[in-house]
Amino acid sequence: MNQQRDPKLPLLAVLMAGGGGTRLWPLSRPAQPKQFLPLIGGRSLFQLTVARLREILPLENIFVVSNSQLMPMIRSSDAGLPQENLLCEPSPRNTAPAVAYALAVLRTRFPRFVMACLPSDHYIADTKQYLALVQAARSLAGQGYLVTLGIEPTAPATGYGYVEQGDRLDSVDGLPAFRVRRFQEKPTAEEAKTMLAQGGFSWNSGMFFWRSDVLEEEFRTQQPAIAQALERMAGLLERKDGEATWKAVWETMPVLSLDYGILEASDRVAVLPARGLGWTDIGSWDALVELYQAHPELRGDAPGGVIDVGSQSVTVIRKTDSRRHLATVGLRDVIIVETDDAILICQRGKSQDVRKIAGML
Amino acid sequence: MNQQRDPKLPLLAVLMAGGGGTRLWPLSRPAQPKQFLPLIGGRSLFQLTVARLREILPLENIFVVSNSQLMPMIRSSDAGLPQENLLCEPSPRNTAPAVAYALAVLRTRFPRFVMACLPSDHYIADTKQYLALVQAARSLAGQGYLVTLGIEPTAPATGYGYVEQGDRLDSVDGLPAFRVRRFQEKPTAEEAKTMLAQGGFSWNSGMFFWRSDVLEEEFRTQQPAIAQALERMAGLLERKDGEATWKAVWETMPVLSLDYGILEASDRVAVLPARGLGWTDIGSWDALVELYQAHPELRGDAPGGVIDVGSQSVTVIRKTDSRRHLATVGLRDVIIVETDDAILICQRGKSQDVRKIAGML
Repeated sequence: MNQQRDPKLPLLAVLMAGGGGTRLWPLSRPAQPKQFLPLIGGRSLFQLTVARLREILPLENIFVVSNSQLMPMIRSSDAGLPQENLLCEPSPRNTAPAVAYALAVLRTRFPRFVMACLPSDHYIADTKQYLALVQAARSLAGQGYLVTLGIEPTAPATGYGYVEQGDRLDSVDGLPAFRVRRFQEKPTAEEAKTMLAQGGFSWNSGMFFWRSDVLEEEFRTQQPAIAQALERMAGLLERKDGEATWKAVWETMPVLSLDYGILEASDRVAVLPARGLGWTDIGSWDALVELYQAHPELRGDAPGGVIDVGSQSVTVIRKTDSRRHLATVGLRDVIIVETDDAILICQRGKSQDVRKIAGML
Repeated sequence: MNQQRDPKLPLLAVLMAGGGGTRLWPLSRPAQPKQFLPLIGGRSLFQLTVARLREILPLENIFVVSNSQLMPMIRSSDAGLPQENLLCEPSPRNTAPAVAYALAVLRTRFPRFVMACLPSDHYIADTKQYLALVQAARSLAGQGYLVTLGIEPTAPATGYGYVEQGDRLDSVDGLPAFRVRRFQEKPTAEEAKTMLAQGGFSWNSGMFFWRSDVLEEEFRTQQPAIAQALERMAGLLERKDGEATWKAVWETMPVLSLDYGILEASDRVAVLPARGLGWTDIGSWDALVELYQAHPELRGDAPGGVIDVGSQSVTVIRKTDSRRHLATVGLRDVIIVETDDAILICQRGKSQDVRKIAGML
């Protein structure tokens, strides 16, 4: 492993924007997933993710991997990304093939770089701290580590994977860093409590940083089928008649996540634990409502046509210009979400079951 | 008072159908009040009221007092009432003027009769028992009493007026009858509990029976302005050019209820307490939901487009052909009512506040 610093390597951000969640049904749909919903003061998490990165990166350094269904939404967003930075997956194969594809494309433009592989559907309150962490992660990745940003747990959550800290590394830009001892998939409530009590665990944010050559090497040693496909794609991507062929190559790759395919078995993974970042993946209506209650200014304009008598802690999410009456009487801790073709009425604390609704439809 | 029986007097039913409640908003509206909603297996309380009476009365003996806005609904119902039995109030003046008007009209067709003055927006489960009570009330009215059907209280309800029993009268058709000691307007919770514990109280059902000449006499002695208007109306109603004049006479009558204007101060009021009649005035969504839970067969076809995960005791009232999704998650004891232009989401036990919603609109 090349542990020497290489601060001159460019940082390229690859945003994962192909996900089609069901947890914010009925607002999120396959054709309008969470990252493109105007959840934060009328702006989308995708827009906010690009805006955060724009503070330290030129647009040319920001890439998006998504699918053909969502590309029009990305193009019409005001993010302003160059057309050639929008990478379209032929079909969904999870994150490992998506990142291999991005690596194949980015290598044609940059000989060597640090790649930040980032979800586009998370909310981060403290941009300044976030950017400091990105720079620290970039430095650590420059040393040859596969770096994950960890989020210090504030509760024994069962909806996230966890990262256990191992040996302490030298601080980076004054921030503590650790080797990763192990990854723990979404735990039971019991396991989560134990980890929280024990300390030294972070939530796995899914924000990864690595050097291009280090990632290539990991693919070669751990996922040779992907490494081979990556090389074939790289050649085909430069040929005008290569499209049909590279799509066929794409289909040869396993459906595999980066976590499972690369990170869990690698011996050079590091974690930068972040505290007080104000991070949330808004993985449920409960999470969004908690965010709105903590920061009312994020909500944007009030929904239209809502009347209440005697309810407590009811959140209504519907269009601001709704004129159809929506009346609530005596409710407590309820979330109501209305779209043109559906209405959800959900008890707070139960919104993890919303995905079952989407599954039933 | 003429206490001798007069069993040969005809029975004429006068249905009060002019009310425009707000307690079942958003289903009930001024133009479509409770009595015309298809609440019971797709039939309306108005239809059911007529159908009950048809078992013992010819259609010619059933009259309706309502207003011009609601008349088309009465005509298009399948009740089959003769056109000349539909009496249209020029403006709302509560029940005393309405009954005086009915009396003026009915006197032109029947010289002497027993009038049953009945709400058309109540539900009664046991028709057989109801009809036996009607016949007993008819007999008691024939003796010269102003008769009210009392409902034996099953709970310390604060939504009804109460009737206190006085001296016991001779049984009528085997049913116990009492003089009325006093009327108690809708009580406080405390008063209601006291009355229930004390016994000898009934809910005031608003179903009244009296002989035509007895009612006339009560108007003359207690409400001379109404008695005078009644006489003037009676003359005008027989003239073709009398309509404009009788509407002017109508407006001279006080806005007054029968309870307050006649019954409370009369010394010849009797009550027939009914037990187990399965009576409810469906005065709230809670009352309707309780009825549906006790008798699921009354509900009619299931609402369309409803999905649930993990809720308990949720009732959804919407069209059977609704295709827009309505999903509930983890709710408990909630009533949801949807129409084309409104949706109500109400905690069970709080539906008495629904009228406030209608007031706010």
